Amino acid sequence: MTAPLHEAHPSSPGRRLPDTQQGMRRRNLSRVLHTVNADGPLSRAAVASRIGLTRAAVSTLVDELIRSGLLEELGPERPGRVGRPGSALALSGRGPAGIGAEVGVDHLAVCAVDLRGEVRARLVRHRTNRGRAPEPVLRELTELIRQIVAEVDKEGLWPAGLAVAVPGLVARDARTVVRAPNLGWHDTDLGPLLPDGLPLTVDNEANFGSLAELWLNEAAPRDFLHVSAEIGIGGAVVVDGRLLRGTRGFAGELGHVPVRPEGPACACGGRGCLEQYAGEEAVLRAAGLEPGEDRVGLLAEHAAGGDKNVRRALRDAGTALGIALTGAVNLLDPEAVVLGGALSGLAPWLLPSLERELARRTAGPACAVSVSRLGPEGPLLGAAHSVVRAVLDDPAAVGGGGA
Amino acid sequence: MTAPLHEAHPSSPGRRLPDTQQGMRRRNLSRVLHTVNADGPLSRAAVASRIGLTRAAVSTLVDELIRSGLLEELGPERPGRVGRPGSALALSGRGPAGIGAEVGVDHLAVCAVDLRGEVRARLVRHRTNRGRAPEPVLRELTELIRQIVAEVDKEGLWPAGLAVAVPGLVARDARTVVRAPNLGWHDTDLGPLLPDGLPLTVDNEANFGSLAELWLNEAAPRDFLHVSAEIGIGGAVVVDGRLLRGTRGFAGELGHVPVRPEGPACACGGRGCLEQYAGEEAVLRAAGLEPGEDRVGLLAEHAAGGDKNVRRALRDAGTALGIALTGAVNLLDPEAVVLGGALSGLAPWLLPSLERELARRTAGPACAVSVSRLGPEGPLLGAAHSVVRAVLDDPAAVGGGGA
Repeated sequence: MTAPLHEAHPSSPGRRLPDTQQGMRRRNLSRVLHTVNADGPLSRAAVASRIGLTRAAVSTLVDELIRSGLLEELGPERPGRVGRPGSALALSGRGPAGIGAEVGVDHLAVCAVDLRGEVRARLVRHRTNRGRAPEPVLRELTELIRQIVAEVDKEGLWPAGLAVAVPGLVARDARTVVRAPNLGWHDTDLGPLLPDGLPLTVDNEANFGSLAELWLNEAAPRDFLHVSAEIGIGGAVVVDGRLLRGTRGFAGELGHVPVRPEGPACACGGRGCLEQYAGEEAVLRAAGLEPGEDRVGLLAEHAAGGDKNVRRALRDAGTALGIALTGAVNLLDPEAVVLGGALSGLAPWLLPSLERELARRTAGPACAVSVSRLGPEGPLLGAAHSVVRAVLDDPAAVGGGGA
Repeated sequence: MTAPLHEAHPSSPGRRLPDTQQGMRRRNLSRVLHTVNADGPLSRAAVASRIGLTRAAVSTLVDELIRSGLLEELGPERPGRVGRPGSALALSGRGPAGIGAEVGVDHLAVCAVDLRGEVRARLVRHRTNRGRAPEPVLRELTELIRQIVAEVDKEGLWPAGLAVAVPGLVARDARTVVRAPNLGWHDTDLGPLLPDGLPLTVDNEANFGSLAELWLNEAAPRDFLHVSAEIGIGGAVVVDGRLLRGTRGFAGELGHVPVRPEGPACACGGRGCLEQYAGEEAVLRAAGLEPGEDRVGLLAEHAAGGDKNVRRALRDAGTALGIALTGAVNLLDPEAVVLGGALSGLAPWLLPSLERELARRTAGPACAVSVSRLGPEGPLLGAAHSVVRAVLDDPAAVGGGGA
């Protein structure tokens, strides 16, 4: 069984739990955790008044959460923000951790995030994964995951689940990579290739990036289109604070929106797809640069240095993004477009032409375009946080047996 | 105050009502109505067992609904499908009616639909409204509405609300036409120009068309993209059985998705928009025909007769639709694309090139494309049914005082 990917907004914790007495208890455990998460440190009395339960009922729930290592009492020596410091509750900095991993075309990354949302360990290995079979790549990833788990184990943390971001389309089973053309993978169930015993969720990198935006950026709008790029162009659609997944789980495929219908042939079978104009390799080619290890860094460096070819290539990529986004904005009427992932580092040179194109093609005030502050780390953080949120949404599903 | 547009799926009636005792009563009235609507005629006992309330509680609710003219007892002489015919309940064929209206570029239409979903009266007036000011057009529409109301009044029906479909963008206040370029209207509040005293909802014609599909076609998918056309091209996005409205209420604007970014200038300020290739006027122009009154009929007649120019023009329009839909399908991953409105009559000549384009540009199995069986009546029916559904969803908000 894989852990469900909880994409609900913080304001609606645990709403999928069944409507039985047992379900009620699980929902209340979740409400206590979310309340402490949002406003803690808090006393038991403060939690009780916020969620409208009796002090006695909250104490029972809190005791259970402390026993399973999800909450801790800060004790009088750490007064926090409350009047009676002895009773202040906080999310545990030990207990469960979310393990996030990313399979990039050029790197592998793993991190561990505790319940408080702090990154407690992180490993990145740069190397190209293009054309490598899933088995050796995931063996390497498993090795990194083991290192991270061992590292945080020393601090009393244990892995509550594993979430893996991939640059491709993932089936609704949240395990199978249906198509990741820039890796060369298709119809691959990642489950058997990753560590046993950890609840697993695999998702598209742009989806995790947009969830990170939703969860970690307090100013994030409730309706936005998230655009990211590495070799390919990824997109994710958030409507009313929820990720739009689509019938097969493939929604948000911005990279294959036709920009010039008779343009260059694309690996997808189409022609003139956005990826042919704004994907990293297309931009490098247009700029006359050799693809190296750190492509975004290379482009940013040349653009900052005033390289006219690079600036023109990025301007053209921005125009192509603007054309594709015009269609997307017309269809979705989002509050904003958010550039994330590798694109965020190139924003100074992409944005002017992108915004100009969007403004001239859409009537009325143009849709706001912003740049994610999470940068290229968004998908990895979104993955790790999805595990943490699953714990907050249903704490009884993890923890030391009793909870 | 305008009536809210209830876009919820039938399976979730009245879910927006407040969570008080009064709200509970209103929800239960709605559950009784929806149950009789779905499975009636039904006895009180059958209703009680279906919704899990006592027979006594259901009888109180039923009496209230009969008093306000929403339910009727069929009596022993009309046995229906139940064992004890004397107690069979059905939705009233008198009582409240939904008044639907459509302002088309070439016609005005009004109809009345009773609670059972039957069209009880309908008037259509063909004439061009292009370039006419809102006032005279809506005076004429008001006159048609009065005629329809007078006609159904003779049969014991009274108007519960008015819903008006327009070929343009409507603000989230559900009254103001922000932009209807093919009429030449902008920023016009239709409220003061329509009959007093009737709860009013104004919405885009494609939105009402997609709601009609959702409500009247039992085989409709829960995730689809609805495409319609008159002069312009309209679109509506349905996700999980609900209409996606967008931040400003403008979602679904397929007509201005760029198809060829350097193509002909469009009234929207962009270039090469879908409307420039697949709107009725563009197709007529490409076919070398003079625009007349019944443009779709003219195109269909010529195409059926084997006119090569018309067939080529429709084939090219289908290709353009396929390009724009490729982007939309990539973004939304819907279960199906549904062609409605005027497009449904031209489907035999549009579909082959549309489907070919979609298939060659999207990897994996192409998205299913179907043709609405409601044809050009979809938006008008969707408008009238939106009023009927508002009554079913909250019967206490209408009816003779008591209910």
